[in-house]
Amino acid sequence: MKNLIIASTSTVYGLGYLEYLLPTLQEHFKNTDTVIFIPYARPGGISHDEYTNKVAGAFEKIGKKVVGLHTFENPVQAINNAQGIFTGGGNTFLLVKQLYKKGVMSVLKNALLTGIPYLGCSAGSNITGLTMETTNDMPIVYPPSFQTLGMVPFNINPHYLDPVEGSTHMGETRETRINEFHAFNTQPVLGLREGSWLEVRNEKITLKGSLTARLFRKNQTPIELNPETDLSDLA
Amino acid sequence: MKNLIIASTSTVYGLGYLEYLLPTLQEHFKNTDTVIFIPYARPGGISHDEYTNKVAGAFEKIGKKVVGLHTFENPVQAINNAQGIFTGGGNTFLLVKQLYKKGVMSVLKNALLTGIPYLGCSAGSNITGLTMETTNDMPIVYPPSFQTLGMVPFNINPHYLDPVEGSTHMGETRETRINEFHAFNTQPVLGLREGSWLEVRNEKITLKGSLTARLFRKNQTPIELNPETDLSDLA
Repeated sequence: MKNLIIASTSTVYGLGYLEYLLPTLQEHFKNTDTVIFIPYARPGGISHDEYTNKVAGAFEKIGKKVVGLHTFENPVQAINNAQGIFTGGGNTFLLVKQLYKKGVMSVLKNALLTGIPYLGCSAGSNITGLTMETTNDMPIVYPPSFQTLGMVPFNINPHYLDPVEGSTHMGETRETRINEFHAFNTQPVLGLREGSWLEVRNEKITLKGSLTARLFRKNQTPIELNPETDLSDLA
Repeated sequence: MKNLIIASTSTVYGLGYLEYLLPTLQEHFKNTDTVIFIPYARPGGISHDEYTNKVAGAFEKIGKKVVGLHTFENPVQAINNAQGIFTGGGNTFLLVKQLYKKGVMSVLKNALLTGIPYLGCSAGSNITGLTMETTNDMPIVYPPSFQTLGMVPFNINPHYLDPVEGSTHMGETRETRINEFHAFNTQPVLGLREGSWLEVRNEKITLKGSLTARLFRKNQTPIELNPETDLSDLA
């Protein structure tokens, strides 16, 4: 059993934190009173407490309590007892390093396979793929592995960005980077634009939101997928 | 002894590969007949041979022969016998993984400390810093360490990009990413814009090119450094 929302971003331009997702989250967490929040990715280096407070403010609007995983003496037990889990964005290297260090990575995987409702945004979505190797983040710390939860049979590229027309910058475009990934890896990569998310219900994976997503496969021309596309057989 | 050119990019907009640097390289490699080229970063997944041919075409214009390190049975010996070395751009994770795998990382460091002229561009510049943890690249492979050559007492961020004014994209700006780096690391980070390079002569480090560079220090407001600034005492 699986029950996940895998979102490109927590925030779309012009709206508040998680605002665009709140109707979806109300339904997704309908049987959850308290959401366990994993704040390890710490965007901008803010503290775990500050980050948890921000999240609690958003979830309050749909009547949910939020408790930071960092406040538990035994995070493994906290995950095992969770009614619902949210992993927020920030730095994926930091998030993955902490998940391994705290012994939470495999526990989280097993918990999600029992059907506990999960929300991931950005870095929290990256870790639902097979590996974190298509993150956009800076490698500010060294994790013990790039392997992640494998809740979907492909990799995620959140905050997917189309090439900027007329740009004079010589750094690689997102598409070039994913092409480099495919020189050394075989799994598909789904570029999720900001405002898009995946809904995972058991083995069914559906693209949600109003935008198309860009699918990259090794040795194939990338294609655009429409909202409501079923991605269950992507691997 | 040290003798390095550490360039933000191989190519500036509108010019050919290495073209803007050729006068500098003519002087830098004046006592070098053959440059050993390290192609491991493989931009866009191209082959080592293709990449080496591209580099040879540029160096031919200043009368230098180029031999790819991948063509030597013993790359360690090739580095030890080199008259000059160039590491090209591409993916820094891939470059660092290969340098460790081939046993070249420490050998390259020792060679550079004897004063062999070195040119790095982009990923090849990243590795001259203390660590590769301020690269912009995607982690497409897992290197055994993020430690790099430490030819300068700080980290490099090549292809440094200012925030795009009016952007609606919610992904982190470069400055935010470097700020996250400084939540967990103490060394300064130098953001080198495309067209800038560092000249390292023994212990003297000088900013070259016509642009300013952006210096980030932990818990300090970033500052702009003018061309010809002496960075020797930055650490």
